[in-house]
Amino acid sequence: MQLTVYLAGQIHDDWRKEVEAKSEEKGLSLTFVGPQTNHDRSDNIGEDILGKQPGNFYKDDAASAINNLRTQVLMKKSDIVIALFGDKYKQWNTAMDASTAITLNIPTIIVRPESHIHPLKELSNKANVTVETIDQAIDVIGYIFE
Amino acid sequence: MQLTVYLAGQIHDDWRKEVEAKSEEKGLSLTFVGPQTNHDRSDNIGEDILGKQPGNFYKDDAASAINNLRTQVLMKKSDIVIALFGDKYKQWNTAMDASTAITLNIPTIIVRPESHIHPLKELSNKANVTVETIDQAIDVIGYIFE
Amino acid sequence: MQLTVYLAGQIHDDWRKEVEAKSEEKGLSLTFVGPQTNHDRSDNIGEDILGKQPGNFYKDDAASAINNLRTQVLMKKSDIVIALFGDKYKQWNTAMDASTAITLNIPTIIVRPESHIHPLKELSNKANVTVETIDQAIDVIGYIFE
Amino acid sequence: MQLTVYLAGQIHDDWRKEVEAKSEEKGLSLTFVGPQTNHDRSDNIGEDILGKQPGNFYKDDAASAINNLRTQVLMKKSDIVIALFGDKYKQWNTAMDASTAITLNIPTIIVRPESHIHPLKELSNKANVTVETIDQAIDVIGYIFE
Amino acid sequence: MQLTVYLAGQIHDDWRKEVEAKSEEKGLSLTFVGPQTNHDRSDNIGEDILGKQPGNFYKDDAASAINNLRTQVLMKKSDIVIALFGDKYKQWNTAMDASTAITLNIPTIIVRPESHIHPLKELSNKANVTVETIDQAIDVIGYIFE
Amino acid sequence: MQLTVYLAGQIHDDWRKEVEAKSEEKGLSLTFVGPQTNHDRSDNIGEDILGKQPGNFYKDDAASAINNLRTQVLMKKSDIVIALFGDKYKQWNTAMDASTAITLNIPTIIVRPESHIHPLKELSNKANVTVETIDQAIDVIGYIFE
Amino acid sequence: MQLTVYLAGQIHDDWRKEVEAKSEEKGLSLTFVGPQTNHDRSDNIGEDILGKQPGNFYKDDAASAINNLRTQVLMKKSDIVIALFGDKYKQWNTAMDASTAITLNIPTIIVRPESHIHPLKELSNKANVTVETIDQAIDVIGYIFE
Amino acid sequence: MQLTVYLAGQIHDDWRKEVEAKSEEKGLSLTFVGPQTNHDRSDNIGEDILGKQPGNFYKDDAASAINNLRTQVLMKKSDIVIALFGDKYKQWNTAMDASTAITLNIPTIIVRPESHIHPLKELSNKANVTVETIDQAIDVIGYIFE
Repeated sequence: MQLTVYLAGQIHDDWRKEVEAKSEEKGLSLTFVGPQTNHDRSDNIGEDILGKQPGNFYKDDAASAINNLRTQVLMKKSDIVIALFGDKYKQWNTAMDASTAITLNIPTIIVRPESHIHPLKELSNKANVTVETIDQAIDVIGYIFE
Repeated sequence: MQLTVYLAGQIHDDWRKEVEAKSEEKGLSLTFVGPQTNHDRSDNIGEDILGKQPGNFYKDDAASAINNLRTQVLMKKSDIVIALFGDKYKQWNTAMDASTAITLNIPTIIVRPESHIHPLKELSNKANVTVETIDQAIDVIGYIFE
Repeated sequence: MQLTVYLAGQIHDDWRKEVEAKSEEKGLSLTFVGPQTNHDRSDNIGEDILGKQPGNFYKDDAASAINNLRTQVLMKKSDIVIALFGDKYKQWNTAMDASTAITLNIPTIIVRPESHIHPLKELSNKANVTVETIDQAIDVIGYIFE
Repeated sequence: MQLTVYLAGQIHDDWRKEVEAKSEEKGLSLTFVGPQTNHDRSDNIGEDILGKQPGNFYKDDAASAINNLRTQVLMKKSDIVIALFGDKYKQWNTAMDASTAITLNIPTIIVRPESHIHPLKELSNKANVTVETIDQAIDVIGYIFE
Repeated sequence: MQLTVYLAGQIHDDWRKEVEAKSEEKGLSLTFVGPQTNHDRSDNIGEDILGKQPGNFYKDDAASAINNLRTQVLMKKSDIVIALFGDKYKQWNTAMDASTAITLNIPTIIVRPESHIHPLKELSNKANVTVETIDQAIDVIGYIFE
Repeated sequence: MQLTVYLAGQIHDDWRKEVEAKSEEKGLSLTFVGPQTNHDRSDNIGEDILGKQPGNFYKDDAASAINNLRTQVLMKKSDIVIALFGDKYKQWNTAMDASTAITLNIPTIIVRPESHIHPLKELSNKANVTVETIDQAIDVIGYIFE
Repeated sequence: MQLTVYLAGQIHDDWRKEVEAKSEEKGLSLTFVGPQTNHDRSDNIGEDILGKQPGNFYKDDAASAINNLRTQVLMKKSDIVIALFGDKYKQWNTAMDASTAITLNIPTIIVRPESHIHPLKELSNKANVTVETIDQAIDVIGYIFE
Repeated sequence: MQLTVYLAGQIHDDWRKEVEAKSEEKGLSLTFVGPQTNHDRSDNIGEDILGKQPGNFYKDDAASAINNLRTQVLMKKSDIVIALFGDKYKQWNTAMDASTAITLNIPTIIVRPESHIHPLKELSNKANVTVETIDQAIDVIGYIFE
């Protein structure tokens, strides 16, 4: 059995590589998909494709449409979503992706530091499982294969 | 025609009363529902009903289950969701509620200050309409009745 | 039994008033809803609410978001859609609304002149009933009450 | 990852071949499906299979049923829809296919010339992304594979 | 509590009046809807509204579109479907309506004579309840109100 | 706002009357529905309507079809489900009803004694809220009206 | 592209073999599934597995449950349904299967003799395409591959 | 054709191995999935991954979240569910899983001893097929391949 996992969350550090490395170590048959992790490319994709926009609002609007199409295509192909909330950043996209996945009945694991327990309590309650580390998230998925 | 509007967003100031007052001024036939706006009651509802929990994590978990049940009952009765993001707070619940509403095909209006254009760009793109003030949100709903 | 009918189609003449008058004549218990029929208001609603936009593309984009929200709210409350294609105009909105209604399993009646038989053949085939005059559309709805 | 793309739109020129050539150039793993592009075959398919019909209306009705079955089978197998509106023709089928795809939650890219911005504004607003050239549409899909 | 019941089945005798009379006798709060029971009107409705068609096939096709629209509108408003199979006639419409209702998750009661046990066994197995008389069907609905 | 509550669970004591009395005391606008609480009537309803069956298996099968139709009609009209597990009886029906409600996205409250924590842990985890007493369940619903 | 086709309809002659032979001749990539075509096996499958039942009604009920499970598993794996109505037999199962497929949005082709035009008119109108011969049904599917 | 079967039910004996052995004997192309059958691992999985919890209630809550995620991932990949109720244990999980599968339109076979006919009658009535032995369940699945 091969499972596809969408990795929602911040694109500011290498956590996706860590997930992939640890899952490979454990020999799990997983395919990983996720958002564009090159931050500049993600912010500029609207202008990269559609050309110069008349201001930041319009540049953002153009980029977000294309990022959303990407996410929609990939999430529909996923069996599980891992949504990681880091210590920094607003990360509303992560909350949005997790909530979409849960509403679409895609099993969802939230990873968040202890400091975020309170502000994320309602989302955690709706998710299937909430953990604090990437290792724990991999353990949850590994358990499916036992 | 009577429409029901769920008011998602922060519970730290009186914005819901402002929405209600302005909509009444305009003579719109609207019923408003929303989360528990007494902050302490919202945070303590788990222990208020289920009794003392063994620590903050468990207190939060108990409260969030009851808050989520409330939101689910009320959102299913709503024709429109207004989701307001203020200048402060993480407001992951607002992102979660807006995303749930959009995925459930409930028309959704986002209200956010100019400073949030960038971090909210993907969510704005998925919402029906994004505006900057409560007056504008009321105008959008008023337009349905024209 | 009271039925709600969404009247999709051009906003350039008085056909909606004709529908309402004829249905009243026949004593049918119908409530009619539909798009904004003041053409200027419909085109300008984005700038009316959100303020001046940087060019026509952006003006149109702002208006369409609000028009789409209006349509979504009203179509979800409708039991039947009548979609009228006149002799003039591209009327892609009419095709879009009819197709949305059919996909959402809302019974749909298309009214179109004989000259449009060929270009509308696939849409007609997906709709429940296709007729050539408003009188015929009213007759179809009247038949439900017999 | 292999994605299937339905190419909705006019069948009067070679734009589908252009899409396929450019996507192959970029090395994207895409399978393309779409309507019957032999115009005569598409118009006559009803009589080709069911025999002579009593007039043009009935000939069109027979053809459209079979064309719609084809589209329904192929669209259900697609991950993305590209809907191209050219300068000419009414293209109500394109509007119908785009609207069906959007309602069914299939990510949709609209390609349309600048001259169509205004009449297509509501449909563009509902689609995921709107661009002006085939190259841009391919770029959007290419971005998913980055 | 008021329930709406769609009465699917043959239109050749007065069984619907019997259902209504018996339910009134028992004081059940039921609203009944169903197909056009004037057989000629049902067969001719296509030509009555659309005018003369070029042959029986086309006359039937026109009538059936309008009859199906009627059924779709009314069945969507129903809480329960009673589908009666009499001794005579093919009654494929009854099988079609019962199967549609079951697939749409509308609780369905089949009434059929003992002689039809064998040919209707798969449909009976999918329906909620199968009985032999109208009195029994009314008893089943009466039980909901106890 | 008026809410309808389905009371799933054992039919061996008066707990439903307790729920109704307590909710009335609190002035909550609730309508209660639920299964047939006359145990003999519930077990015999198949034979009461369809006549003598050839053994207990067939008697049970006939009764259950009618009980399931009743539950399906009433649950579709409910905004909330309360599922009570008592100390005695297997109560597979209660587990079935709760699981159906949760899968259909109807907000669900489980009431169960402390002794059932372990065997009900997976169902509790899927429900919105789990409490130990009827008073607590009423408090949860009362909170929606605050 | 490989398509799976469910062949609904009578099990009294060899029409399924004819479909398979003709589709192979044309080189179409089709997998065929369908009901148990050994009539005795189909009628007896309940008693074959569950043992002797107390009369014909119960024998039929046991068989139909297993036949329905088979159909449900196979139809969920199908891209297209062909439903053939022959000259003889009541064939309510064929009407039931076609109606289920249409309601589940599976493209459906009806094959029926000219003599059945009138009694099947409503079902034909809901199906995608209606033809009179097996050759025509194969032609319709062949057209998808052109 | 390869089918995937989820084996819901008690994890206290070797019945799953019996199912697999018998299905292999018959040469059926089946893949089996199911819950964690190591009872201790299943009960402790919450603490194994998340660490020590403050009491049994919390230990159970943590384990059930992970067990439910596992079930949700695997059931979504299944074509058929077999739910076995043994003589002992409350087995509310089995009732929950069967009810979820039925509500999600996954064909479901219940295996239960004669002694459970009465308490399981409503669930049996909703399932596709109910049998008394594992051999019979395998026979039902084997019949799909005939």
